Formats: sequence, structure tokens, C-alpha cells
Amino acid sequence: MDLNLEFSAGYHHRVLMARGLLRGAGRPPLMAGDDGPARACLVLDKGLATARPGFVEEVTGGLPELDWQRPPYLVPGGEPAKNDPSVLEDLLRHLHDAHLCRRSYVVAAGGGAVLDLVGLAAALTHRGVRLIRLSTTTLGQADSAVGVKNGVNRFGKKNFLGTFAPPWAVLCDPDWLTSLRDYDWRSGFSEAVKVALLKDPDLFETLDGQADALRERDLDRATPVLARSAELHTLHIVRGGDPFEWRTARPLDFGHWAAHKLEQMSGFRLGHGHAVAIGLAIDVTYSALAGLLSASQAERICGCLERLGFVLPHPLLSEPNPLLDGLEEFREHLGGPLTITLLRAPGEGFDATDIDPARMQDAIRQVAARASSACP
Amino acid sequence: MDLNLEFSAGYHHRVLMARGLLRGAGRPPLMAGDDGPARACLVLDKGLATARPGFVEEVTGGLPELDWQRPPYLVPGGEPAKNDPSVLEDLLRHLHDAHLCRRSYVVAAGGGAVLDLVGLAAALTHRGVRLIRLSTTTLGQADSAVGVKNGVNRFGKKNFLGTFAPPWAVLCDPDWLTSLRDYDWRSGFSEAVKVALLKDPDLFETLDGQADALRERDLDRATPVLARSAELHTLHIVRGGDPFEWRTARPLDFGHWAAHKLEQMSGFRLGHGHAVAIGLAIDVTYSALAGLLSASQAERICGCLERLGFVLPHPLLSEPNPLLDGLEEFREHLGGPLTITLLRAPGEGFDATDIDPARMQDAIRQVAARASSACP
Repeated sequence: MDLNLEFSAGYHHRVLMARGLLRGAGRPPLMAGDDGPARACLVLDKGLATARPGFVEEVTGGLPELDWQRPPYLVPGGEPAKNDPSVLEDLLRHLHDAHLCRRSYVVAAGGGAVLDLVGLAAALTHRGVRLIRLSTTTLGQADSAVGVKNGVNRFGKKNFLGTFAPPWAVLCDPDWLTSLRDYDWRSGFSEAVKVALLKDPDLFETLDGQADALRERDLDRATPVLARSAELHTLHIVRGGDPFEWRTARPLDFGHWAAHKLEQMSGFRLGHGHAVAIGLAIDVTYSALAGLLSASQAERICGCLERLGFVLPHPLLSEPNPLLDGLEEFREHLGGPLTITLLRAPGEGFDATDIDPARMQDAIRQVAARASSACP
Repeated sequence: MDLNLEFSAGYHHRVLMARGLLRGAGRPPLMAGDDGPARACLVLDKGLATARPGFVEEVTGGLPELDWQRPPYLVPGGEPAKNDPSVLEDLLRHLHDAHLCRRSYVVAAGGGAVLDLVGLAAALTHRGVRLIRLSTTTLGQADSAVGVKNGVNRFGKKNFLGTFAPPWAVLCDPDWLTSLRDYDWRSGFSEAVKVALLKDPDLFETLDGQADALRERDLDRATPVLARSAELHTLHIVRGGDPFEWRTARPLDFGHWAAHKLEQMSGFRLGHGHAVAIGLAIDVTYSALAGLLSASQAERICGCLERLGFVLPHPLLSEPNPLLDGLEEFREHLGGPLTITLLRAPGEGFDATDIDPARMQDAIRQVAARASSACP
């Protein structure tokens, strides 16, 4: 017997973004509503609960269709949530004790790390309960919250364990960003620069033109930028033909080989968005050194990142050799031959498989030698 | 912004079954072969390695396309592999240390529990490396190895953690079954009876007519029965319209609500196939008590199971109340309202949502009172 059968599975991807999303009336229905009120657990970032009094009530009151189980469950925010196996274990036990079934909802609120952690726990429980993500960081709203992945770090490797599991829905309210520290506020705009450089030169023009206002937390200007960034990321996932990343090309990971390694080298003290800004600067500088991108375009991109509040010449860049190991780790994580994205112009990224390590070291040195310093 | 987008992901499901599958020439190509020899790790049941000297060489020699990393990794067989979190943890570390990428292969050999465990580890590593299952039990070849699930037991619940992850390929050689204990040999035929009752009355006729020969390990008669059972299970998954079990109906779980609970109540000393035989007897008896199935058909099915070597009146049936809790646990695991499969005739199963607990207790008592005893 030799059976060789193809089949497909259908998914939906739902992303809502609006100011006051859970406070006002008129929100479209979110649940399947097939079996009356569904059990739900709220899991949220401990720091968020402290920084935004009333947030829990906003969520439970704003999602009255759900039958809330037990008090909200708090997890640490940031990468520590993904580094400590006991955090995942305790969360799984909480979801078990709440007697969720596969039609129940886990509502996760926080930054990308918390959503990654809770997403994995929800994906594993009964082989997958429904996940609603409430994204409360610029980085999440601009990018990570609309992804279809989850993960935790193990054995010193970021996202070594995880699954692809499209969420039931992603809810983003830019008003939730007002309690962020400046460092975290800024963090999301490097992913917006990334996706603009790949797919929407007009968005890059907007980011470059409004960089100062965005850095200074102008919420009216930030909202459409975050929405467009989220939309571009979402469309790439659902219309790009490879939602679960079975192929080698991974354009949304532009700048990410260095970013992942820098985060790891910093012991995850360097935030993901800041690491992505540095990674973009390196790959844009490499593109210029390779004669692919004009030097003035590369400089304009680096300057835009700096005006958005990113410090590009990080001390870890003075150790080019361990950073270069990130190329191989990136290849191993994605599988197949090494493929990274380089740039010919805004809107013109392409897959490159032939990377010159000496030239990459030069690019790292150039970024390390930039005169930028922390914004006020 | 309110994005609501549908997308789909394409999968393949490959199942090969033949005697001498990895020993002879002429096996069809299995790997993608896109990048030269791919890294692979062999993970196998410790008991299998002892019981079948030469098995490792048969596998590595029979799959020369793979670039084998490190010595084969041994895991405990049976449910203990799925009960102990440290077994999963150590296996994940082994896969990490082997520097697999998402185009590498994990080759898992053993019974259903080992394939479930290794499948979960492979699905989590880098969010999914390719899994080739070598099924070495009748239960695996008849059913579980061709599934698209994996899992481990946690918090006392079977398969509480797991994912849906179609394997790259499933290889079954009935010659691998010769080293099984009699208890394990017999174990697979209850799933064949189950799928025959649901989908293929002719297969049930064959099972009933050849029950004595199958019990006595006639490999020539067993091979086509196993192949047809595997094919029916595979076709249900890939053509049944719900490969990842998002809906409530779960016809392949006929007889399984009681089976899962009995396994748990026995501390997993009762094998899955034997528990399924008892579970089928209970639901078939319930179907007769409810006037859905003729009493003679029910008796014929129970008699067939007994001649295949299953002992139906298990001591745990004298505790009907904890067993009945299995109905609610089954509902919770699957999600939505309780739905179990009942039978009107071989080939005529249907979803039932209205279960009478008192009648179910009667069915349990009737099975407990049967005169069958262990076969020689």
C-alpha cells in the first residue's frame, strides 16, 4: 500500500484595531456564539496589570459574551516569560484547572513575549483552545500580535519551541499604549520600517516624514501607521502563499538574523524592536556595500531609524564574530540553505543566498561606528 | 480596522505498508531531496531495540538518503513515555543538540505512545521538523500511526498536551510485529473492528470470519486487514472534511469515551486497544438497549472482539460511577456539547448527543457480567 494524499485545512485571521475598542458600543461580534457563553480565561502581563488599573475590568466588561473562569492569571512580561520553563508549566496547570475545552477561549493580554508564551500554552492545551490576543505594545500592534506563531525560548535559543497556530482574533487598541515606557513605545516602529521597506514605499515616506512625532508619542499619527503595518504583515501571512513558513524564503524576517543573535547575546536586555532596528541597519548597510542599494538610500533608512529613537551603534557590535554566528543559527532555525532578505530600494527587497562574511563584518563595523546616541 | 481574512494551508499524508518495506529495493522515494542528504535523528522505543536486534541497522540502511546524526536515541515504550515530563524534556534537548533544522527529519520507531511523544517533540522543535513514523505495533499500523495528532499526558489526563501535525510519512512493515507480546499483537484489532463498523461492513465480515486466525497471529491474513484499517482511518482524516477536529462530531472516537477513562482508571496498565474493545462493547450494548441496534448484532460484535482475544468484563466495570465521569471528560477534551457515536448496524454509525446515564450504567453492567475470560 502506498497512499499519498493531499488535503487542506481552512483558517481565518481576524484583526481589529481601533481606539476605545472594548469601551464603546458597536464592536462587531467576535465569538462563534454556537453554544451559548463560552468559558474563558484571562491571562495578562503582570506589569500591564500594575501600569493600567482598570484594564481587567475593561477587558471582562468589553467581552461580556464570555463566561470568565477564575481570577485573571498574571505572568511575567518580556523575555523572562519565555525563558523560564516553570512559567509555561504553571500556566498550563492553570488552564487545566479551569476546565477549558477546545471551544473555550484563552484571552491573552500583553506584549509579544506574553502573547508568544500564552499562545503556546493555548495551542498545546487539548491540542488547541481558541486564543484571543489583546496586544498592548507598539511592537505587538505593528507586527508580532498579528502573526500566526507562538513560542518559548529553550536551550539558549529564542523560540526554539513553538507552533504555528492562527489566533481566533487579535484586538489592538492604541490607547493601551499610553502606559508604555518610552523605550517600549519606540520599539514597534522598526518593524513598521521593515515592512514598509519590503512592501509599501509610501509607508516608509510617512515613517520618515513623521519620525519625530512618532518618537514623541503622537497617538493620532501613530494609529494609522500601526494599522497599516499590521495590515501589511497580516496580508503577507494570509496572501503570501506560505502562512506556516514551509519554504526557505522568509521576507518578513528582513534584518532578523542579527536581531535574534543580538537579543540572545544581550541576555535579552536588548528589546526585540531595538534589535531589529540594528539588524535592519546592518542589512541595509550590507546592501549598500554590495552595490545593491544606493549609499544615500541606506543612510536615509538608518537616519529614519535613529530619529524614531533607535540607537544603532550597540556595544555588542564590537564583537563581530559571535554576531556572525547568528547567520548559521538563523539558517538552522528556518531550515534549508541560508536565505536572507536584502534591499535594492524601498519596496524592492529580494532573497539573497550568497552572503559574503567579510562584507557583513564591514557592515557591522560601519553601523558600530555611527555617531547616533540615545534620544532624549 | 477590521480585517477578517480566510486562508488555507495544504498538507500531504503519505502512508506506506508492505512486508520487508525497508529491506528490499523498489521503495518509492520519500524525501523531498531538495537540498542533498538531510540531517536525521532516529528515536526509538527502548523495548523495540532490545526485542528486535538489527532493527536500527534495518532502518538506517533502509533510509540511506538521510544523514544520520548521533547514535539512535532510546525512549521508554508505552504510556510511561507520555506520563513523565522529563522524557519529553530530555528528548527535546537531544533534538536541539543534533542541530536539526525545519527541513531535517526525526524518524520515530515504536508503538503509539512513542510516536505520540516523539511527534510532539518534533512538532515543537523549531515550530516543526519533519517526522517519519515507523509503526511497529498492530495498534499503530491499524490506526494511531496514520493519525495527524501527537500528545503527552499531563495532570492525569491522557493527551492533555499535544498538537495536530501531519507526519511527513508513515512506514508500516507487518514483519515488525513478530516480536510483539501476544497482548500487544491483539491490541490493534479493536480499532480495525471500530473503523469497520463505522465505514466498511465487509471488513467487519472479514474480521469476524478470521478472528481466530488473527488472534493466532496469522501474518498473511493480518496484513490486508491492517492495510484496510489504516486506509479507512487515513481516508477519514484527509477526506472527512475535518482533519484537525474543529467540529464536535468525532466518529473515529467510537467507543473511546469509556476507553480513555478506563485507561486512566487502570493507571495505564490496561492497553489502549484492549480499552477500546471494552468501550466498543459498552457503546454497542448501549445501542442495543436503546433499541437502535439489534441484540443479535450487538452480541455478534462483542463475540468477535472476544474471539480476537479481548477480555470484555474488566474489574473496573464494577465501578460504574467513576467510569461515567469519562463522558464529561470526553466532552471537555473534544469541546462543545457531548457527542458520541452509536450504531444502528455495521456501517451505520451516527452522532448521538442525548445520552441516558442510567441506560449507560445498564450497558456497563451487562458487559461486566459477560462470561468471557482471557484467551489462552
